[in-house]
Amino acid sequence: MVAQLEYSRVVEAQSASAILQNQLYTYTFDQLPLQRGGQFGPITLAYETWGNLNAQGDNAILITHALTGSSHAYDPHYPDDPKAAWWNLLIGPGCIFDTSRYFVICSNILGGCYGSTGPSSIDPHTGRPYGMRFPIITIRDMVHAQRKLIDHLQVRELAMVVGGSIGGQQALEWAVTYPELVRKVGVIAATAAQSAQAVAFSEVQRQAIMADPDWLCGDYAPGQGPATGLAIARMLAMITYQSEEGMELRFARNSVQCNVCPSPTISPDLGARFDVENYLYYQGAQLASRFDANSYLYISRAMDLYDVSAGYLSLNAALRRIRSKSIFIGVRSDILFPAAHIRTLADKVHAIGGDATYVELDSPHGHDAFLKEWHQLAEALHQI
Amino acid sequence: MVAQLEYSRVVEAQSASAILQNQLYTYTFDQLPLQRGGQFGPITLAYETWGNLNAQGDNAILITHALTGSSHAYDPHYPDDPKAAWWNLLIGPGCIFDTSRYFVICSNILGGCYGSTGPSSIDPHTGRPYGMRFPIITIRDMVHAQRKLIDHLQVRELAMVVGGSIGGQQALEWAVTYPELVRKVGVIAATAAQSAQAVAFSEVQRQAIMADPDWLCGDYAPGQGPATGLAIARMLAMITYQSEEGMELRFARNSVQCNVCPSPTISPDLGARFDVENYLYYQGAQLASRFDANSYLYISRAMDLYDVSAGYLSLNAALRRIRSKSIFIGVRSDILFPAAHIRTLADKVHAIGGDATYVELDSPHGHDAFLKEWHQLAEALHQI
Repeated sequence: MVAQLEYSRVVEAQSASAILQNQLYTYTFDQLPLQRGGQFGPITLAYETWGNLNAQGDNAILITHALTGSSHAYDPHYPDDPKAAWWNLLIGPGCIFDTSRYFVICSNILGGCYGSTGPSSIDPHTGRPYGMRFPIITIRDMVHAQRKLIDHLQVRELAMVVGGSIGGQQALEWAVTYPELVRKVGVIAATAAQSAQAVAFSEVQRQAIMADPDWLCGDYAPGQGPATGLAIARMLAMITYQSEEGMELRFARNSVQCNVCPSPTISPDLGARFDVENYLYYQGAQLASRFDANSYLYISRAMDLYDVSAGYLSLNAALRRIRSKSIFIGVRSDILFPAAHIRTLADKVHAIGGDATYVELDSPHGHDAFLKEWHQLAEALHQI
Repeated sequence: MVAQLEYSRVVEAQSASAILQNQLYTYTFDQLPLQRGGQFGPITLAYETWGNLNAQGDNAILITHALTGSSHAYDPHYPDDPKAAWWNLLIGPGCIFDTSRYFVICSNILGGCYGSTGPSSIDPHTGRPYGMRFPIITIRDMVHAQRKLIDHLQVRELAMVVGGSIGGQQALEWAVTYPELVRKVGVIAATAAQSAQAVAFSEVQRQAIMADPDWLCGDYAPGQGPATGLAIARMLAMITYQSEEGMELRFARNSVQCNVCPSPTISPDLGARFDVENYLYYQGAQLASRFDANSYLYISRAMDLYDVSAGYLSLNAALRRIRSKSIFIGVRSDILFPAAHIRTLADKVHAIGGDATYVELDSPHGHDAFLKEWHQLAEALHQI
């Protein structure tokens, strides 16, 4: 019940802030060579910035967002509201990402649906959305696109690149691909490559989307996408973002009491409606109303495909390129990117001579801790 | 690749044994009062037995099967083939469930689709399958139905009731509901009630089934069910039956090499086909070809609804009824019924004066260890 009220607040706050005047900029360039071959373009990246770039062009911090995130990492109009933007309490004057000292940038990733070019964008060659004609993109492609944006903004060196989950994969990729440009890197709740289990969870989600008759092989009309399939995918994703321990603390076996949401399939509830089920229905419906299903397919696949060692002789050969002071942050209860794997990655970087620190967040919130544990995150990031 | 070959063998062996002459018996009775109210009937239970009942009627062992299982726990024609029946290596002359000493019984559960009355059975009042007009059933109802079967077989006392997963829930329920009838009980990979996370995984599976247009609110024709939705549900279930560690050992990030299976949705593979994905497609298709989707909905819901304390003043009040010598077996890597919860349950029974032992299987195979770790299981069960 408490949970229900909480998620109502999130959405109200986010809608309000979206209507308000955070300036969303765009930058368009002609072409990008893709990791898996061919050129793709034109590409637009949508982005937001906070603070000012100094004359040397070396005080920029690039924040990289998660799977269904956007460039809206910070909301200066509601700086104290953790729900107004996804990393709101970490960014701002005096915060760990101090906008009075740093020029903070966050761009919607290539493949996204919050202003950057993605499957829902119009293909200039056909006048129709790309749909599944969008190319397979990778984390490396996303980073190469961000590099073009950074150049456009006249940033000469990044003081830091930092993000969680797929944002952490991007941060790691930045440090390996452009070692000379990245002074510090923060890789949070991400590893060098996803586990078989994480790929498996991800594929079940995509199958749920593509099984929805409204998916139409990706050629649905804008706003008419596979809402049921996307909601089911999100329900599963939300389980993997949490933990057994955290869900037990929050929901246990409570029945739903109020704010009852319809299930994605409007089907019988088979004798019970647990609070945890209602929560998942709510989360599913929310995502279906705000996110593009094809973007979900492409971005989640980019996460699966990511392997930082691709194109290098070995994982060590890739990691040896890192010149940044690096921090790797795991979450004790994360089931999607288990802390032990992140620690191993940090150890590897350290063992081959890198300046790497590992910090583990002591949280029951699972993978989602990187969007919740403000104090622990700030403390960890202070260490580099 | 090895995995692929392995699952081909499973099916061949099971089909062969099904054709062969394991006698499947049935017992039909008129009515059962249901835990959630009302009467339901007639009810048929399909069952198999091995060994002979002694004159005292007290050497019977009741084996209780898992979600998609059947009465075919043992195949005397292929006693050495672990794939020929689901607990084949534990049952037989000289085995832990010794058919030269015990009368071993396994019945398909109420709600199932392997010969017992379930949603795919014909409702005598309408001449059509029950579909979603089948009543909500519980673990307690399943056990009450088994009690009637036991009486019919003239069993006066059960030497043991034992099973894993939903079979473990049934075993626990037997010991609480009929303490005077159960000398020993083996509760494997099951707890007093499922966690919020397990309920959540279960509900995503049901939503995937009910989102399939072929589900038709449960009124699909025999053999025409929601194969895609059921396959997706099974893909997810298979992840929860394994573990991060076990899947990494088996699949890692290998690409599929041979025995390529179509995905449930016959959709693009988005740049890769991981071996783990192909394995899940295979498992999904297999279940869709052998199991009834409505049975899946009802039985998985019975697992969610199960709480051994229902109807008692407290959990301790329920557990205090147990008179059996009991063994609780957890699996180190089980994510569906975490070992810690099973240990806690055993400790509770012990603390209130029960004769309870806890044993943990040291296995990377997760929940599925109760269908794989023959030696460890036999060793554990030898302890009571």
